[in-house]
Amino acid sequence: MTDPLAANKTPTRSDVLAAYSLIRPHVTLTPLLDRVNIKTQAGTKLSIKAESLQETGSFKFRGALHACMLVAKEGARHVLAYSSGNHAQGIARAAKMLGMEATIIMPHDAPTIKMDRVRRDGADIFTYLRGQESREELGERLQQEKEAFLIKPYDDARVIAGQGSLGLELLQQLNEPHDVIVCCGGGGLSSGIALAFDGGPHRLFVAEPAGFDDWGRSLDKGQRLSNDRATGSICDAILTPTPGEITFDILKSRLAGHFAADDRQVMMAMKSAWEEAKITAEPGGAVALAAALFHYQGDRPVCAVVTGGNADPQIFAKALAQDYPFGTG
Amino acid sequence: MTDPLAANKTPTRSDVLAAYSLIRPHVTLTPLLDRVNIKTQAGTKLSIKAESLQETGSFKFRGALHACMLVAKEGARHVLAYSSGNHAQGIARAAKMLGMEATIIMPHDAPTIKMDRVRRDGADIFTYLRGQESREELGERLQQEKEAFLIKPYDDARVIAGQGSLGLELLQQLNEPHDVIVCCGGGGLSSGIALAFDGGPHRLFVAEPAGFDDWGRSLDKGQRLSNDRATGSICDAILTPTPGEITFDILKSRLAGHFAADDRQVMMAMKSAWEEAKITAEPGGAVALAAALFHYQGDRPVCAVVTGGNADPQIFAKALAQDYPFGTG
Repeated sequence: MTDPLAANKTPTRSDVLAAYSLIRPHVTLTPLLDRVNIKTQAGTKLSIKAESLQETGSFKFRGALHACMLVAKEGARHVLAYSSGNHAQGIARAAKMLGMEATIIMPHDAPTIKMDRVRRDGADIFTYLRGQESREELGERLQQEKEAFLIKPYDDARVIAGQGSLGLELLQQLNEPHDVIVCCGGGGLSSGIALAFDGGPHRLFVAEPAGFDDWGRSLDKGQRLSNDRATGSICDAILTPTPGEITFDILKSRLAGHFAADDRQVMMAMKSAWEEAKITAEPGGAVALAAALFHYQGDRPVCAVVTGGNADPQIFAKALAQDYPFGTG
Repeated sequence: MTDPLAANKTPTRSDVLAAYSLIRPHVTLTPLLDRVNIKTQAGTKLSIKAESLQETGSFKFRGALHACMLVAKEGARHVLAYSSGNHAQGIARAAKMLGMEATIIMPHDAPTIKMDRVRRDGADIFTYLRGQESREELGERLQQEKEAFLIKPYDDARVIAGQGSLGLELLQQLNEPHDVIVCCGGGGLSSGIALAFDGGPHRLFVAEPAGFDDWGRSLDKGQRLSNDRATGSICDAILTPTPGEITFDILKSRLAGHFAADDRQVMMAMKSAWEEAKITAEPGGAVALAAALFHYQGDRPVCAVVTGGNADPQIFAKALAQDYPFGTG
């Protein structure tokens, strides 16, 4: 019996395997859509890992569930998260499944639909006035008052190990060496997949929104750099200020390359996923597909991970209103 | 060695099993989405068979492929179909895969996007002036000139047996007795599933657009009745004038009931599939889900088959613009 995985360690491939054996009965083995009628920019075969079909509509459920299971083993009855988006939904659903309480800290102006989804799973929401109140102070107070365990969205070994389960699924699903592209915000999913791929035949690339390429610049420079701006892309779900410490430690030596896609390309990828693969992609969830459609220049078959489907209906309708460029290709 | 299945016979469950063994390597085993966070009108568990993820975006590929494989065995090098929609796409793709030629007869005013999709798969299109020219005359001329085999969209034993493969997949995927709801136009898919279900634990229901309930009235009366109108529902893909002869012969004794859903309910079901299951449903493909959400009154878990995802972007955007009623349920 080894020690349980501490949140602040750098996890290994063994930790990903252990995480998957824990969460496997509760996560959806999301399909690999490998008969999609579109190609990469380089003309190679393109398939989609449809992770938007995961519980709560994004990969975040995997890591959230794993982290909640481990803190529950340590006696926690209550978990806490800062998030207005997919991590919040993942934590809320995981806590509900495990019979734990969950509190989510959100800015006061978070979209109603996101609050509703968290409440639907029985979580409490505490709001703070964005720009006037400190969410960290509120968080610390709630941690003490409620004896709640804080679960960070990506820079947490348990979360990373849980997200890595997606990489283990890809190892089963891809029947020849692929270039796999995944979006990268804090790096939790991509670092988990990188660990899962250790020693395997696939190469991993990350994709970011253009203008928010902190990962691309950090990887090129060999040190963690920040974005100049915090807002200004439609890919709100994956805008993080800087690479995580643990995730950078994992990814700095494991990636084959990186891409950046602009808003227009992301919107095209959303329409393409809807038109050709019949799935919903949210903007942040479509960045890897945009990279495959507009930037990839390699010679391998590519698998783009569509990481989430919690799109805003109005933005989605805008994506559908674009002229579609792949229809007669 | 038994005789090959003739197109004008009433097929049996054995024919469905034989069809599946032929087409299985080439069709997608579409996922059962059984962790969807919505319930039936009666409050029972609701899962979705996501057949919109099938090749060409609809179940029609199954039957088209099976029929093309059988006519190819008989020496055909060329197939012919009347259709402006999903059957056309199924035939075009199947012919392409088998190295056969395909000709599709469409009205001159068929949507460009549908023509493009058929051309993409290398099929020829012949158009006729709707209301002025006879598509049947054109079809007979082409059959003779090109020695082409006509494949009907539903009243064909080979097509029915191919569609039935979806029912065999459900037998594997559903782990307890379900009420399965499927949309019904000509009845090809529903009769195929009905055969697959013979002797099994599931009950089958059909769903139609309100005002176009030729099946419901025919089943109640015990004889084939027609619709009063040919147009006027958003569910264009499943508007047929009257039940097929072979399909009625199969379904008249095998259904547990029928439903009719109106346009508003269908649009709600489209949004619900997008919002909760993250998949694209076209109007005709969402009728069974609409029946589950707004009409089903039984006490079993329900599986709604979402049969197609080839939606028009403008109609889809309209569906997304509706207020969503299930978000806080």
